[in-house]
Amino acid sequence: MSSNPVLDDEAAMLLAVEQAEKVKGATYPNPPVGAVILDAEHRVVGVGGTEPAGYAHAEVVALRRAAGLAAGGTAVVTLEPCDHHGKTPPCTEALLAAGVARVVYAVADPNPVAADGAARLAAAGVEVVAGVQADAVTTGPLREWLHRQRTGRPHVTWKYATSIDGRSAAADGSSQWITSEAARADLHRRRASAEAIVVGTGTVLVDDPTLTARLPDGALADRQPLRVVVGEREISADAKVLNDDSRTMVIRTHDPAEVLRALSDRTDVLIEGGPTLAGAFLRAGAIDRILAYVAPILLGGPVTAVDDVGVPSIGRALRWRYDSVQPIGPDLLLSLVPN
Amino acid sequence: MSSNPVLDDEAAMLLAVEQAEKVKGATYPNPPVGAVILDAEHRVVGVGGTEPAGYAHAEVVALRRAAGLAAGGTAVVTLEPCDHHGKTPPCTEALLAAGVARVVYAVADPNPVAADGAARLAAAGVEVVAGVQADAVTTGPLREWLHRQRTGRPHVTWKYATSIDGRSAAADGSSQWITSEAARADLHRRRASAEAIVVGTGTVLVDDPTLTARLPDGALADRQPLRVVVGEREISADAKVLNDDSRTMVIRTHDPAEVLRALSDRTDVLIEGGPTLAGAFLRAGAIDRILAYVAPILLGGPVTAVDDVGVPSIGRALRWRYDSVQPIGPDLLLSLVPN
Repeated sequence: MSSNPVLDDEAAMLLAVEQAEKVKGATYPNPPVGAVILDAEHRVVGVGGTEPAGYAHAEVVALRRAAGLAAGGTAVVTLEPCDHHGKTPPCTEALLAAGVARVVYAVADPNPVAADGAARLAAAGVEVVAGVQADAVTTGPLREWLHRQRTGRPHVTWKYATSIDGRSAAADGSSQWITSEAARADLHRRRASAEAIVVGTGTVLVDDPTLTARLPDGALADRQPLRVVVGEREISADAKVLNDDSRTMVIRTHDPAEVLRALSDRTDVLIEGGPTLAGAFLRAGAIDRILAYVAPILLGGPVTAVDDVGVPSIGRALRWRYDSVQPIGPDLLLSLVPN
Repeated sequence: MSSNPVLDDEAAMLLAVEQAEKVKGATYPNPPVGAVILDAEHRVVGVGGTEPAGYAHAEVVALRRAAGLAAGGTAVVTLEPCDHHGKTPPCTEALLAAGVARVVYAVADPNPVAADGAARLAAAGVEVVAGVQADAVTTGPLREWLHRQRTGRPHVTWKYATSIDGRSAAADGSSQWITSEAARADLHRRRASAEAIVVGTGTVLVDDPTLTARLPDGALADRQPLRVVVGEREISADAKVLNDDSRTMVIRTHDPAEVLRALSDRTDVLIEGGPTLAGAFLRAGAIDRILAYVAPILLGGPVTAVDDVGVPSIGRALRWRYDSVQPIGPDLLLSLVPN
């Protein structure tokens, strides 16, 4: 195993975050967790992410891959290991059975049923380190799950593409494509890890999107989110959003509270509607994160990405905070959270 | 001098860039240049920036401060030292007289009259290094001057403040303040280093701005740019833009070509007008840089920062490129240049 990379705790946690990102969207109702096993010399001997519900948690996947080399080593996990018997035995038991000497995790488990894994491990003589790369996890793979644990509600992301002057189409309505191929690929990855994509009937009537997650070559991704069409207008039975590529839910209202009630068992909801739907959710305070793909272009004209958000004067502006700013190809991806 | 900092060429150049930024706006028609003198042990023994026209160039200021400690040392300069007799003697002579062993510069002088300083120094046995931190200089203190050397025209920056949804005011017209105090302080520093600020008569009639550069405490900055009001409407003799804080030029047209003709002897022009003026300059292709202060707020409503930019369909969008993205307090400052 001498060619395996040697990582410190921080670097190993970032590798665990990558593992978690890979399984995001496929672990419901379990959180998407990543784990890395280091042997006693800090060499990587196993990595893993949470399997679908009823199958192994990330720690167990990674331990299995480490095949006995974990003894005296370190388990690096994005979430505090669980200490309860659910559909699978507690991860704490698996870690103790494997003989790990240290457990490093990023975020404590807020779920009272699963919690106290750290205490159990420490009581058994394992060195426990908490909080390593916590930001990368709380704003990364566990963002939506932690939100749900905290609030009991789905985490709602509103995504839109815009020119720097706030337009979603040119004067004649043409909008393909405002953003780059790189930005669209990023969006399709996010669709694949979301549990539901919501649009209004207006978007279906005007753009007739399939609302699927696609790979760069155009093929369907392995995982497809539920497609949700909201609003009171009729949509055609031939609308592409009703095709067999994924399941579709039609909700005959665009009241955000009712829409979210219908999706209350989801964790990660992506709103991709136009200005009307976005405005309704923004006015209702029902958006937890804004993802704006901002192309370095000017369009001018009447088609704005946002219309009425219920702000009469500057003192009542909806105030957010930049959470991250990331170049994607020629575009910028701005992430904002409520201030 | 043993407590003076020891800097390598790259770090010394960044210090020279700082010196250049300090004198930007006060060197017309000379370029704003910064210089740092390192002694033979690479200790900083002198720094300087270009003095106003007729007075010393940056190299001479820095050599004067080095007071004899330059012998055997290095001169680090943002622009290739000049080799011509203008209002002052050539900098090459001053550097040779001071006995520097090395000259490091960022950007070659494109001006044929001043050029060949590097060749002259090398011929005299000085080690010459070119291109160090060139990007920091070409996109920094020398951006506008290099543009003028290249094109013969002033460099025109369009600055605006906006919400992330592209609004410049709320529905009732209120706009104070969209951006933070930190962003406004940044703007006032830029005003102080510009040579002219242009607004339309519409902005004067609606907002009645003084268009001065102010310090954080509200006092007038040492340098004030020329204020330029363009358009055909009458403005009141009581308009604040006509007060004694600085000089004001009124141009009875808003044709960008005519406006720029009236400002043809300037290097650094800042457009601060509203959507009408900005749209006219954008349609005319007369903007060399966009500076957008983007606040993390949503406003919605009818008051967009940009209206008609002459784009009928997405294929004819005005395409730019992000040049830099910088957080300023809670806001973002996006710099864009033509693609």
